[in-house]
Amino acid sequence: MFSFALGTGTQNSKGEWLEVFFPTPLLSPAAALGKETRQALGAADDARVIPFQSAQCKELAAALRGAGHDDQAQLAESLAAATRPLVAVILDEDSAPESAPEAYLKLQLISHRLVKPHGTRLDGIFAVLKNIAWTNEGPIDVEELAARRLQARLEGRALDVESVDKFPKMTDYVMPSGVRIGNALRVRLGAYLGEGTTVMHEGFCNFNAGTEGPGMVEGRISAGVFVGANSDLGAGCSTMGTLSGGGNIVISFGENCLIGANAGCGIPLGDRCTIEAGLYITAGTKVTVIDNEGNEANTVSARELAGHSDLLFIRHSVTGRVECRTNKTAIALNEALHAHN
Amino acid sequence: MFSFALGTGTQNSKGEWLEVFFPTPLLSPAAALGKETRQALGAADDARVIPFQSAQCKELAAALRGAGHDDQAQLAESLAAATRPLVAVILDEDSAPESAPEAYLKLQLISHRLVKPHGTRLDGIFAVLKNIAWTNEGPIDVEELAARRLQARLEGRALDVESVDKFPKMTDYVMPSGVRIGNALRVRLGAYLGEGTTVMHEGFCNFNAGTEGPGMVEGRISAGVFVGANSDLGAGCSTMGTLSGGGNIVISFGENCLIGANAGCGIPLGDRCTIEAGLYITAGTKVTVIDNEGNEANTVSARELAGHSDLLFIRHSVTGRVECRTNKTAIALNEALHAHN
Amino acid sequence: MFSFALGTGTQNSKGEWLEVFFPTPLLSPAAALGKETRQALGAADDARVIPFQSAQCKELAAALRGAGHDDQAQLAESLAAATRPLVAVILDEDSAPESAPEAYLKLQLISHRLVKPHGTRLDGIFAVLKNIAWTNEGPIDVEELAARRLQARLEGRALDVESVDKFPKMTDYVMPSGVRIGNALRVRLGAYLGEGTTVMHEGFCNFNAGTEGPGMVEGRISAGVFVGANSDLGAGCSTMGTLSGGGNIVISFGENCLIGANAGCGIPLGDRCTIEAGLYITAGTKVTVIDNEGNEANTVSARELAGHSDLLFIRHSVTGRVECRTNKTAIALNEALHAHN
Repeated sequence: MFSFALGTGTQNSKGEWLEVFFPTPLLSPAAALGKETRQALGAADDARVIPFQSAQCKELAAALRGAGHDDQAQLAESLAAATRPLVAVILDEDSAPESAPEAYLKLQLISHRLVKPHGTRLDGIFAVLKNIAWTNEGPIDVEELAARRLQARLEGRALDVESVDKFPKMTDYVMPSGVRIGNALRVRLGAYLGEGTTVMHEGFCNFNAGTEGPGMVEGRISAGVFVGANSDLGAGCSTMGTLSGGGNIVISFGENCLIGANAGCGIPLGDRCTIEAGLYITAGTKVTVIDNEGNEANTVSARELAGHSDLLFIRHSVTGRVECRTNKTAIALNEALHAHN
Repeated sequence: MFSFALGTGTQNSKGEWLEVFFPTPLLSPAAALGKETRQALGAADDARVIPFQSAQCKELAAALRGAGHDDQAQLAESLAAATRPLVAVILDEDSAPESAPEAYLKLQLISHRLVKPHGTRLDGIFAVLKNIAWTNEGPIDVEELAARRLQARLEGRALDVESVDKFPKMTDYVMPSGVRIGNALRVRLGAYLGEGTTVMHEGFCNFNAGTEGPGMVEGRISAGVFVGANSDLGAGCSTMGTLSGGGNIVISFGENCLIGANAGCGIPLGDRCTIEAGLYITAGTKVTVIDNEGNEANTVSARELAGHSDLLFIRHSVTGRVECRTNKTAIALNEALHAHN
Repeated sequence: MFSFALGTGTQNSKGEWLEVFFPTPLLSPAAALGKETRQALGAADDARVIPFQSAQCKELAAALRGAGHDDQAQLAESLAAATRPLVAVILDEDSAPESAPEAYLKLQLISHRLVKPHGTRLDGIFAVLKNIAWTNEGPIDVEELAARRLQARLEGRALDVESVDKFPKMTDYVMPSGVRIGNALRVRLGAYLGEGTTVMHEGFCNFNAGTEGPGMVEGRISAGVFVGANSDLGAGCSTMGTLSGGGNIVISFGENCLIGANAGCGIPLGDRCTIEAGLYITAGTKVTVIDNEGNEANTVSARELAGHSDLLFIRHSVTGRVECRTNKTAIALNEALHAHN
C-alpha cells in the first residue's frame, strides 16, 4: 500500500473539501491497515477518501490497534474531540490525485520527508485544489470570502487574508526538524527541506522541490528543482523550474555549489559549481570555457555544460564575456563535453 | 456623479479616520443617489464624507430604496449591526482626495476594477493617509501602538504587527475574481489585477498600477506601471515606476511581453517584447539594434525604442554588448525610430 | 552600568526563556538602579537575569522610585497585572550575551536606537537564542509545535506559523518613530532604522545593521551593514554582510549613495556613490577607472576603491566593461588610490 493517513480539515459551505491536515501520515504501511480501516468505517474495498464521524473514532481506534498501529489508534481517539470534519485517506497505489484530500496527503508526505520531490505522482494537482483565501479565521473558499469579510467587519473584526492560493504554506501543516524559515509564506506545502536547511527571508521553495540539506537558501527554488547537500543559494538568486522557463529539463544542483546573490541558473549543475553574484546563466547562454591553464578551450551553449562538476561561471568584468573556468585540462574538458552529448 | 459608497471603518482614539472598508462602492451612479442620501442623513448639499449612526440606517435604507438602489439599501440595513463607525462617501466629481475615507474609496474603486490605474485623481494621497500599524488586532494608529502593545502583553497576548504603512494590503478589502496572490502583503490596496492574473510569492503590485490579465506576475509592478494581457513578469524582475527611477514617464507594457527573471525595465514596451533574464534596460542604456538579417542597424539609447513592438533585448554573452533584435529590415527600423521621435 | 530593563516574556513547557519584551529599556543608567533592584528582588550582587513574581512588583516599584526612576517604577506597577513570566535584566558591563533575556535586551536596545549596530557585543548570540515558531497564538518552542498544532486543530483553529527563526520581527517589540515598513517580517529585531527610513515591501534589514535615515530601502541590508543618511537602496539590490560573502570587511555606505534596483555591492562606499541598476560589484570585480576627462586612469579590483566618495559604477552597454567614473583628475585619482592602500 502506498500511503495511509487520518486527518481533519475544512470544507466550504457546500461541503466540498478545502484542505486537510494529517498529523502523522504513513508511507508504505501493511495492506491490512487499509482493509481494517475501510471495514471499520463501512467503506467500499477501493475507497480512497473516507469521511467519518466522531462517533466512529472508538471503533476505528480498535481496528487500528488490532492491525498493530497503536500510534494511529491513539490519533483516532484524539480525533474524536475534533470540531471539524474527519477523513481517512487510503492510497493503495501511487496514482494521480483525484481529490483535495489525496493531494494534501501527497504534499504532506513530501514535506515530512517521507517522499522526495518527483517521488510521487502529482499530475493534475492544480485541477483538484481549490483557490483558497488563507485568513486569520482559517481557510475560506475564495467564493465565500466577500460575505465572510463583511460579517467579520460588522462584528468588529478585520479579516486578515495573507494569501489567496491553491497551496498553503508548509509550516501550517508540517515543520521538519533542524530547519529555520525566515518568512514561512515563502515555503509552499509540498516543499522538501532537508535537515540543516535555513531558508532566509528572501529564500523561497515551491512544492515538489527542495534541498538535501544542510544548506543556506536565500534564493528561489522553483517547482521541481532540487539542491544537493552543502549547496547555498545566494540572496535573490533565481532557478528555472519545470513550471517556468526551464521547460522539461529538471533542474538540480549537486553538492557544494554556490549560486551567487542576484544570479540565476537555467541548467542542472554537478558538484562544486559556482555562479558569481549577479550573473544569469540560461541554457542558451554562449559560454567560453577556460581550461586549467587559463586558455580558451571552447565556446559552447551552457546547456552543453549541464551536469558537469567543478565549474566556475563568471562574466569577465573587462571584456563582458561569460566564461566558465574549470580545473581540467583542455583535453579532459573536451572529452567530458563530448561524453555528455 | 463620480462615486458613492457606504462603509465602516476604524478611527484612532482622537476620532480620526484610519481606514474605511466599502463593501460595494459604485462608479457613476445617478446624482439622485447622492441627493437622497445627504437628505436622509441630514448632511449639507456638498458634503463628501458623512459619518452616520446605526440608528440612521433604517431611514437611509428607505431613501436608497426610494432612489432605486435595493443593493445599497440592503447594505445600509446590514450596517445597522456594525460595532465600528459608519460613513457615507459621496463624490460628485473626481477631485483630489482630501480625507482618508475619500482616498480609501478611490483605492477600492481601482481594486474592484471599476477604474483603471491613472483613471482617477490621487494627487496628495500620501498627505491624507495616516501611517498605520496593521496588526492581528486590527489597524492601530502608529502613535498608539506602544500602549496597545504593552496592554496586550499584560493580558497575555503577543500583538502581531505585520506592516506599518500608509497603504493596507488589497486582500483585506477587495479580492477580484480569477486572481491568485501568493503573498497578499505584496499587493497594496489600489492595485488593479485583471481576471486571470497570478501574483506569485515574489510578485509585487503597488497602488495605481496593475495588469490587464491574464498574466503571471513574479516580478515587481511599481506605482503607475500597467502590464498588458498575456504578458509575464519573471521572478525578481524590476520595473521603474513613477515614484522611483522612472520619473515622469509612465511605464506600460503591451501584450505578450516577457520580462525575464531578475531583469529590469525602465522604458515602456509595445507588444511581443522580451528582455532576457538578468538584463536591466534603463532609459539611458546604449542599445545596438540588429535588423532581421542580423546586421547592426543603429546604436541608440533605449528610450528611443520606447513603445516599439517585437523587440528582443539581450546582452551578448561573448561581446558583453546590449543588443536589441527585431524582425524588421534596417530601413523599416530606421523609419520607425524616426517616426517615434 | 551598561543597561537595565524590566520585561515580560514567554517560556517553553520546561520553563526555559523563549523571548522577552522590554517596554522601556535603559542605556547607561546609574549603578544604584541595579543595586536597589537586586536588593528588592533578593538577588545576588552580580545577578544579570532575575525572574520575579507579580507579588514582588510593589516592593520593586518602591525601590525604583527610591532610586529616582519614576518611569521604571510605574512600569513595575503595570507588570503586576501580567499573566506571563516577569524578569529584570541588569548588565553591569557590555559583555557577550549568555542567555535569551540578555540577547533580547541587546537587540531591543539597538532597535530603540539606544545603541548603533556594532555598538554592543553580540558574539555567541545564535547559541543563546532558541529556534522559535512565531505563531498567531504567540511564540512556541519549535519542539512543542506539533503538539500545539494538533491541539489547535482539534479545537477548530488553524495555527498560523509565520516564521521559524531565532530572531523575531522588530515590529512585535519596537517601532521606532518616523519609519514605515511594508512587510514587517523582513526587519529582524536588532535592526536600527533611523528617523525617516522607509523599508518598502522588497526591503530587508537584518539584526546589527541598519540606516542612519532618512532613506528609502527597497533592497537588502545584510547583517552588519550600515547605510548613511539620504542613501537609497533600489528594489531587489543586494549587500554583502558579515555573515555572508562579505567576510570580515564591514560594509557601510556613506551619505547620498544610490544602489540601483537589482544591483549589488560587496565593498564599503563613501559619499555620493552610485551603482547602476542591475550591476553587481564584488570586492574582486576588475574595474576600469575613468577620470573627469573621460580617460582611462587605471584598472583595479573594486576593493581598492572601498570607502572612496563620488564614484559612479556602470557596466558599459557597448563594451560590457565595468567602469567607475569619477569627477577627479587622473592624478588626484591615483594619489587617492595610493593613499588608501
